[in-house]
Amino acid sequence: MQADAFDYRFDVKLSDTDAAGVMFFAQLLRHAHDAYEAWMARLGRPLDGMIRTGSLALPIVHAQADYRLPLRHGETVIVRVGVARVGPKSFTIDYRFTTADNRPAASASTVHAAVLPATGETTTLPADLAADLAALVRAGEGAG
Amino acid sequence: MQADAFDYRFDVKLSDTDAAGVMFFAQLLRHAHDAYEAWMARLGRPLDGMIRTGSLALPIVHAQADYRLPLRHGETVIVRVGVARVGPKSFTIDYRFTTADNRPAASASTVHAAVLPATGETTTLPADLAADLAALVRAGEGAG
Amino acid sequence: MQADAFDYRFDVKLSDTDAAGVMFFAQLLRHAHDAYEAWMARLGRPLDGMIRTGSLALPIVHAQADYRLPLRHGETVIVRVGVARVGPKSFTIDYRFTTADNRPAASASTVHAAVLPATGETTTLPADLAADLAALVRAGEGAG
Amino acid sequence: MQADAFDYRFDVKLSDTDAAGVMFFAQLLRHAHDAYEAWMARLGRPLDGMIRTGSLALPIVHAQADYRLPLRHGETVIVRVGVARVGPKSFTIDYRFTTADNRPAASASTVHAAVLPATGETTTLPADLAADLAALVRAGEGAG
Repeated sequence: MQADAFDYRFDVKLSDTDAAGVMFFAQLLRHAHDAYEAWMARLGRPLDGMIRTGSLALPIVHAQADYRLPLRHGETVIVRVGVARVGPKSFTIDYRFTTADNRPAASASTVHAAVLPATGETTTLPADLAADLAALVRAGEGAG
Repeated sequence: MQADAFDYRFDVKLSDTDAAGVMFFAQLLRHAHDAYEAWMARLGRPLDGMIRTGSLALPIVHAQADYRLPLRHGETVIVRVGVARVGPKSFTIDYRFTTADNRPAASASTVHAAVLPATGETTTLPADLAADLAALVRAGEGAG
Repeated sequence: MQADAFDYRFDVKLSDTDAAGVMFFAQLLRHAHDAYEAWMARLGRPLDGMIRTGSLALPIVHAQADYRLPLRHGETVIVRVGVARVGPKSFTIDYRFTTADNRPAASASTVHAAVLPATGETTTLPADLAADLAALVRAGEGAG
Repeated sequence: MQADAFDYRFDVKLSDTDAAGVMFFAQLLRHAHDAYEAWMARLGRPLDGMIRTGSLALPIVHAQADYRLPLRHGETVIVRVGVARVGPKSFTIDYRFTTADNRPAASASTVHAAVLPATGETTTLPADLAADLAALVRAGEGAG
């Protein structure tokens, strides 16, 4: 509906599954990160450029996931990416995973700290990035 | 151009790369298999159904890859999937990887044997699958 | 020191790292699960047997991780596996990751539900498994 | 028996397997590379240092694998690493995978080119590395 709603879609591939017949739990977080990268690129902030220039790193300092449904081989999954929180030195992205018939399958979140690659020290988020992310929190909350 | 030409597209994600800054070599074969699955689904032979029913397995008995260009984080890659050979009990799929500006980046092939899951014995390819694949070899050769 | 202390050791391989030069965050959870499997095997409850017989599944319903230090290519990491909690239908495993020189690098936990594979329904933990795990919680607390 | 014989051992973890119940084929090449890294470290040439200093890169330009036995979850696998060939600008490593009861399970090889990271150009192998590798080819051939 709104410009900042972002859905990333993937199919559960054989390479995602394990001998129990469903997606291996850590692959959900890999797909969350793949979705985050696609989302950042759409915001005009591709991660590959950021890593190559070495200007700023946004390493994950916390990650969590809740699994509601087994995700089976061949299933289509939609990931809705959103901004949950923006702080002075970090922000939180959340991910809602639904099946093609719109059943909630899983949710996840990742907390990213702003770090200066040269020293490894945490730093304040650049003002323009913080503003962009903050605008998306408001939009996500429907308070726009 | 023709109905059976099949291109699978992916972006090199951070999860594909390694500390040398480019795609880790084994990830190319993972992407080849992801492309093969998408291609088989389009042929009306989704692998997940085949594995779930346990009627036939098509395990890889040989795989190889040649790497021409480093594939960098953020790069878009196109995989052209084709049938290289169909034998009585096995077939060979090949994969040509190109960059978005059409430079050859890598090639790969996988040889799949027909196996009865219950016993692990090799078997002859089902006639309809062999015929479908053989038609695609001819098409690929431009002799159609 | 005590029989139930279990340390799992791995080296950060190139395949674990990403273009930012350190271990990709989801790989930490993969290593946590590898450590959990080795630990379960040592308890006499190898996961592969459990999955093959289909008697009981212990899928992860929640996972989380906190990252304190970047884990660099070539670094040796020790994972201390422990039982954090045992409930009637689920249990929580925790993981402390330290570097070879004993600096805390990360921590993680996974919550496993007891599920009947045939139906997908949650069930009570088998009494012997619950007792074994509960004994390890006590030992871990040093209240033995 | 001899100093340069090098065996790398791993257990097939759930994270290695797929919904067909056995190790996903590309994971064999990941384990081959993990074994290569451990072997290079034992030769006194750890890859992480080489990548960090940026003095020389040894990217894989060709990889291949033959799969003889399905590798099942929980199985112990031994990888014998050896030097197959040393050329002026590249070398070939081979890998023989056997089960714990010594059945041949798979084989693989990787061809590594010497490349200058700064320019991406191929270069001649440093004389000391070429000599070390060549000595191992001779040893492997039993012609020592």
